[in-house]
Amino acid sequence: MSEDIGVFELTPQKEIYSRINKLQEKMGEEEVELTLLIQNVDLFYFSGTIQKGFLFIPLGEKPVFFVQKNYERATMESPLRCIKTQGIKTLPNLLREFGLKGKRVGMELDVVPVSLFYKIKDLFREWEIMDISEQIKEVRSVKSEFEITQIKKSGKIIDKVFSEAKYYLKEGMSELELDAILNSIGRTNGHQGFLRMRGFNQEMPNIYVLSGDDACMTSFCDAPISGYGATPAIAQGSSARRIERDRPIIIDYGGGYNGYITDETRVFVIGRLKRQLERAYRTALNIVEDMESFAKEGVLAVQIYERAKEIAAKEGLAPYFMGYGEEKVSFVGHGLGLEINEWPIIGRGFNRPLQAGMVFAFEPKFIFPGEGAVGIEMDYIVSKGGVERVTQFPGEIISL
Amino acid sequence: MSEDIGVFELTPQKEIYSRINKLQEKMGEEEVELTLLIQNVDLFYFSGTIQKGFLFIPLGEKPVFFVQKNYERATMESPLRCIKTQGIKTLPNLLREFGLKGKRVGMELDVVPVSLFYKIKDLFREWEIMDISEQIKEVRSVKSEFEITQIKKSGKIIDKVFSEAKYYLKEGMSELELDAILNSIGRTNGHQGFLRMRGFNQEMPNIYVLSGDDACMTSFCDAPISGYGATPAIAQGSSARRIERDRPIIIDYGGGYNGYITDETRVFVIGRLKRQLERAYRTALNIVEDMESFAKEGVLAVQIYERAKEIAAKEGLAPYFMGYGEEKVSFVGHGLGLEINEWPIIGRGFNRPLQAGMVFAFEPKFIFPGEGAVGIEMDYIVSKGGVERVTQFPGEIISL
Repeated sequence: MSEDIGVFELTPQKEIYSRINKLQEKMGEEEVELTLLIQNVDLFYFSGTIQKGFLFIPLGEKPVFFVQKNYERATMESPLRCIKTQGIKTLPNLLREFGLKGKRVGMELDVVPVSLFYKIKDLFREWEIMDISEQIKEVRSVKSEFEITQIKKSGKIIDKVFSEAKYYLKEGMSELELDAILNSIGRTNGHQGFLRMRGFNQEMPNIYVLSGDDACMTSFCDAPISGYGATPAIAQGSSARRIERDRPIIIDYGGGYNGYITDETRVFVIGRLKRQLERAYRTALNIVEDMESFAKEGVLAVQIYERAKEIAAKEGLAPYFMGYGEEKVSFVGHGLGLEINEWPIIGRGFNRPLQAGMVFAFEPKFIFPGEGAVGIEMDYIVSKGGVERVTQFPGEIISL
Repeated sequence: MSEDIGVFELTPQKEIYSRINKLQEKMGEEEVELTLLIQNVDLFYFSGTIQKGFLFIPLGEKPVFFVQKNYERATMESPLRCIKTQGIKTLPNLLREFGLKGKRVGMELDVVPVSLFYKIKDLFREWEIMDISEQIKEVRSVKSEFEITQIKKSGKIIDKVFSEAKYYLKEGMSELELDAILNSIGRTNGHQGFLRMRGFNQEMPNIYVLSGDDACMTSFCDAPISGYGATPAIAQGSSARRIERDRPIIIDYGGGYNGYITDETRVFVIGRLKRQLERAYRTALNIVEDMESFAKEGVLAVQIYERAKEIAAKEGLAPYFMGYGEEKVSFVGHGLGLEINEWPIIGRGFNRPLQAGMVFAFEPKFIFPGEGAVGIEMDYIVSKGGVERVTQFPGEIISL
C-alpha cells in the first residue's frame, strides 16, 4: 500500500470520455437532449474533479463544465472544457454562448434539493426536466479497468487494517478505542478520510466495532447491523461498551482510495464462541462459497439472494438471517464504487443480471438477540466466467 | 472528558417541547398550519431521536412522529408520541386518523430532494408547500443550557487533541500520519465519529493537518483553507506531504459530542516561522481580542466581520485575509450546533444581531501564496454582556 500513498492519481481523459459516451447512449434511449449534473460524486465520475459547478452533457456533442469554485483546480484535474462562472444566474447566457440546447433535460432528481431545483427551473422555463439518476446508476455500476485498480488499492487498506487488528484487540478495552486505532491505521495507509453514500440522510462511519449484543441494535440505516454509536445523535457504530471474552466482536470496515470504497466484515473472538454462533458463522462461509461457485455475468442478482436465503433456511437459521424479527433487511449484498450503496443490489426485487465489471460486497450475517451477530462480508468483481475477490484477508473467525 | 464517555445522554422532554414551541411561534408568523420534518438532523433536534420517519408539527397542537425505522429505538429516545408506519404511502390515512390538518405546509426545501418531494406532493395535492428552513435555522441558532453543556463537552475533546498534538508532531512525518493520530485521540475520548454540514454536497473531515503551502490550496468548500486531501475525489484535508521545519502547520479540528460540533484551529511550528507569518498571526490574535472586547447580544454579526477586516487592512494584511486573490471567502466566523454551518454567519450581508445563546466559531486567518497559512479559530458562546470561550486551550503558536 504505502508505495501508493501520495500519488495523486487523476482519472485518465479516455476514461472520462468513455463514461460520458455511455451516459449519452442512455440519454439517446430516453430522448434526453441535455443532462445537467451538479452532485459532487457524479461530477467527479464524469469530469475527474469534484470542484463545484454545473456539468452540461449534450446529446452527441462535447460536454462543458461551468466551474464556480475552484476553477483553477478543476482545470488541473479535469480533461473537460472548463469555463469559469460566477454562479447559477450566469447559466442562461453561458448556454446560449456555448450553443448548449435542449428541451428535454436530465437532472439528478434523487439528490438535488427542491430549492435549488426551483432556482434552475425558474432560469430555464422551457425545460422539461426528467430524472436521469437511474441511468447514471446504471453507467456507474459497471467498472472500468482503471476503476478496478482503484478498488483493489482500496481493498489493500482493508487487508492492512484486518491484519493488524489482532495486535490491538484486548479484553476490557472499549469498542471506541479499537475503532480509533483501526481507523488511524487505515488513514496512515492512505485512506481518503470518509465514505460516501448516495441519497438523502445517508451517512456511514468508516468502521463499526460491535461486541456482544451491541450488534443486535438496529437503527435508521438500511443495514442488517448498526450498533448504538457513541450517541443517539449518530445512532450507529461503535460505543463505549467494553469488549468481553467469549463474545463475538464484529468489525465492519470500509476502505477508501481515490474515491473508491470497499466494505468488508470479519468476526473476532477472545476465547471461544457459543456453538450456535460458530455454526451460524460456518453457514455464512458456506453461503459465500456457494455464491462463488455460480455468480458470474448473466446471473440475476436476486437469484444470489434467494439461494443465500435457502441455505440459511436449510440450516434452520432463517429467523436470524440478515436481521431478526421486524428488523430484517431484504438484501445480502450491494454494489460498491464511489458510493457505498451502488448497483447491483443483491436482494429482493433486483431482477437485473450481473455484468462483467460490476463490483459488490456480499455479506451473509446472522443476528441472535441477546447474543450478538456473526457473519462475513467480502467484496467481489464480476467477470464473464465468475467472481474474483478484491481483498486477500482470509474469511475465518479470528480467535485470540 | 473520560467520565462522560458512554453516558448515553438523551435530550430532556422539556427541551424538546420548548424547541417545538419556538418553531410553532414562527409557523404562526408565517401562517403555516403544519410542518413536516424529514431531514435527520432536524428530526434529532425536534424529536430527540434520529430514527427514520416523518415528524408532523401542527400549529398549536401536539406533534406526532410517524416512525419507519427503527420504531423501538425512536420510542426509547424520543419523548414525542411515536407511531409506527410502513412508509410514505400510509401517511394520508395516518394524518386523517390523527387529525393532522393544514393547507399551508412547511417543509425543509433546502435539503429535501426533488423526487421525494414529488412523492409527497402527489399524496397531498391540496397542500401549498412552503420552505420552512430559514425558520428552523433561526430556532436552532439560539442554544439552550442543555445544548451549551453538550457544546462544552465537545470542546473538551478539542482541548484534549490540541494538548496532545505536540507529543506526536515530528519533522518528516506526513500530514496524514498526524491526522490519523489526532483523530484517534478524539475518538478514544468520545468523539461521535463524524461532523455534519447542512446542504447539498456539503461534507467535511474531522481534521485538517496542513503544512507549508498545502494550506494555500483551496477547493469547492466555502472555507478559507482546504488543502489537497489524499485524493482529488475528496479534495480537502490532509495529504501525504511531509512536515518540514520552519513552516506553519495549521491544524483545524472539529469536536463532536452528542451531535454538537465545535471547531478550532491552531498553528504549530517546528523551529521558527518567517517574520511576516509571525506578524500575521499576532494580527489574528489582535482581531480575536478586539472581537472579545465588544461582541455581545445585540451586536450585528456583519459588524464583527467589518471590524476584523479593518484591523487586517490597518496592518497591511488585507490581501491575505480570509484567502488570497479570487479565493477569498466573505466571512470570518460561523454558527455551530448540530451542524458546522449554522447561524449566525459572521460575514458579509448577515445583518442580524447576535442573540444570547448563539454559539459561533471565529476564525481570522491569513493565506500567503507559496508560504502557507496562519491564523486561529476559537469558539464562543454569546451572552447579554459579552462572549465566553468554549474551550480552554491557549491561542498562541505552539513552537517545538
